[in-house]
Amino acid sequence: MSGAEAAMRRAIELSEQVKGSTYPNPPVGAVILDRDGEIAGVGATEPVGGPHAEVLALRRAGERAVGGTAVVTLEPCNHHGRTPPCVDALLAAGVASVVYAIADPNPAAAGGSARLADGGVRTEAGLLADEAAGGPLREWLHKQRTGRPHVTWKYATSVDGRSAAADGSSQWITSEASRADVHRRRAVVDAIVVGTGTVFTDDPTLTARLPDGSLAARQPLRVVVGQREVSSEARVLNDDSRTMVIRTRDPWEVVRALSDRTDVLLEGGPTLAGAFLRAGAIDRILAYVAPILLGGPIAAVDDVGVLTISNAQRWRFDGTERIGPDLRLSLVPT
Amino acid sequence: MSGAEAAMRRAIELSEQVKGSTYPNPPVGAVILDRDGEIAGVGATEPVGGPHAEVLALRRAGERAVGGTAVVTLEPCNHHGRTPPCVDALLAAGVASVVYAIADPNPAAAGGSARLADGGVRTEAGLLADEAAGGPLREWLHKQRTGRPHVTWKYATSVDGRSAAADGSSQWITSEASRADVHRRRAVVDAIVVGTGTVFTDDPTLTARLPDGSLAARQPLRVVVGQREVSSEARVLNDDSRTMVIRTRDPWEVVRALSDRTDVLLEGGPTLAGAFLRAGAIDRILAYVAPILLGGPIAAVDDVGVLTISNAQRWRFDGTERIGPDLRLSLVPT
Repeated sequence: MSGAEAAMRRAIELSEQVKGSTYPNPPVGAVILDRDGEIAGVGATEPVGGPHAEVLALRRAGERAVGGTAVVTLEPCNHHGRTPPCVDALLAAGVASVVYAIADPNPAAAGGSARLADGGVRTEAGLLADEAAGGPLREWLHKQRTGRPHVTWKYATSVDGRSAAADGSSQWITSEASRADVHRRRAVVDAIVVGTGTVFTDDPTLTARLPDGSLAARQPLRVVVGQREVSSEARVLNDDSRTMVIRTRDPWEVVRALSDRTDVLLEGGPTLAGAFLRAGAIDRILAYVAPILLGGPIAAVDDVGVLTISNAQRWRFDGTERIGPDLRLSLVPT
Repeated sequence: MSGAEAAMRRAIELSEQVKGSTYPNPPVGAVILDRDGEIAGVGATEPVGGPHAEVLALRRAGERAVGGTAVVTLEPCNHHGRTPPCVDALLAAGVASVVYAIADPNPAAAGGSARLADGGVRTEAGLLADEAAGGPLREWLHKQRTGRPHVTWKYATSVDGRSAAADGSSQWITSEASRADVHRRRAVVDAIVVGTGTVFTDDPTLTARLPDGSLAARQPLRVVVGQREVSSEARVLNDDSRTMVIRTRDPWEVVRALSDRTDVLLEGGPTLAGAFLRAGAIDRILAYVAPILLGGPIAAVDDVGVLTISNAQRWRFDGTERIGPDLRLSLVPT
């Protein structure tokens, strides 16, 4: 089984690389092992209309797939969308077994495992399921299960929880490495949300940029939330990407307005982030923590609706990574 | 050299275990490898008057030390204190080489390497020097170099930088695992410092306790700092350990008053910690970060003397550890 596990890790990596480019399909990775357990082909979901991960990997494996094992991050689909069902391709290729991490929660696509079994193919579910579900497939699974986009709140903070020094200066709290990491992340999400307060204070362009300053190939939808009027001169309204203005203070109204999206990044300041946190509308927190102390009155978050310690908002650390001199902490609901 | 490196890692572990019990000697670890590179004996500094690490390890190795290698975290001492010089023992044992991590900065004890070389023993310095200097020997080296005790500021915080909820409740922000970790740390330091504010608000005993609630064998000196009168009923004045009251608000006066100590733990609240931070009197920060959000007005640190971002207090993360559900972040000056 350790050959399959290594193959699954590779499939997860492959799927991470296509995250953001597969909408509305899930970012899936696949590895075909031949009879001897050697890698015969790999693939990851192409943009919509293109082949799914399994089909690409099978094509690359060719005859070596016969009697081999397909290792896939998600249960192979059983429905005819823009492309034929992946189970058909797996059966036609003659693989002896299929190992997948996560069962498909989408009723229209599910049943792949049963059809494979009917066709005489051994199936095994659950290999590295937590890694796949917490990583590349997290946002897509959330969308499947709840019908809502997955909202990640990203913020930069000093180690003592400040988002600016006492005089309001905040450029830059975190390092160039952290800012580059944020730009990579922006390039794979479907939308970035800020409040009108951030637009007034920072006048950001809210684009995904490459290290050389040029625009990334893929730009997320920019979303400005709040009751205040946004100046037509604001950079967020420039031609670098599309922009949606939602005149509300209600986080759930924002989530509903983005219901055709999967992966939403909230980059709001204390007011907007506080509103989302109080509403329970955040699905993941990404804190970029710089090894600096600022003190003073400007906290990264103000009111999260907690008056006493027993009512603290309880989360769970699900990842800690060094990004240059900074730490990136990931928290998910308990 | 990888045999020596593994032995040095073991020596560092051994020295960690005796940290706090060797004052005024440094906590040192030693491993004797025989001619074939096998571990023949290990040792760590005994309490004052007892044998040093090398002597213990040589005793355990016996004849197997002949032609072997002594791997030691600190350059073997060359002076006759309460015990004879370690270099004499190494020469008498007939080791062929000595590998150490850190040169002895103490002029009275130094020169060990030169005497070994004169005696025909190969010496090598610097193996895993950063690990030894940043870990078990950090506080002792600081004391040797500056003449002052090493001050670690420890605090518990929510991920958003609060030390209590809006109503002042704070028990408990961090987990039982983190609190046990603090008690283990208290048992190895020489003194714990708090402000009168903490004594009034929390009435802590400031003792090191075992998981069953009983007192640890070794109790640090308790130090209360500030101008306010401390009630004779305060728990910090009970018989569990000794207590020093220093009626000042000047961090450097506190540091001077503790000049015969090596390892000092500051557990003060925002006022005292802020004063130490503004004075530059903190040598390490240990933040126990719970995966909770609190918001509200009670920050773990208030004024660190920073008005604008370019004057931020800049530190460096030198360790991140999961402690139960929490994170323990270690920061040292840049």
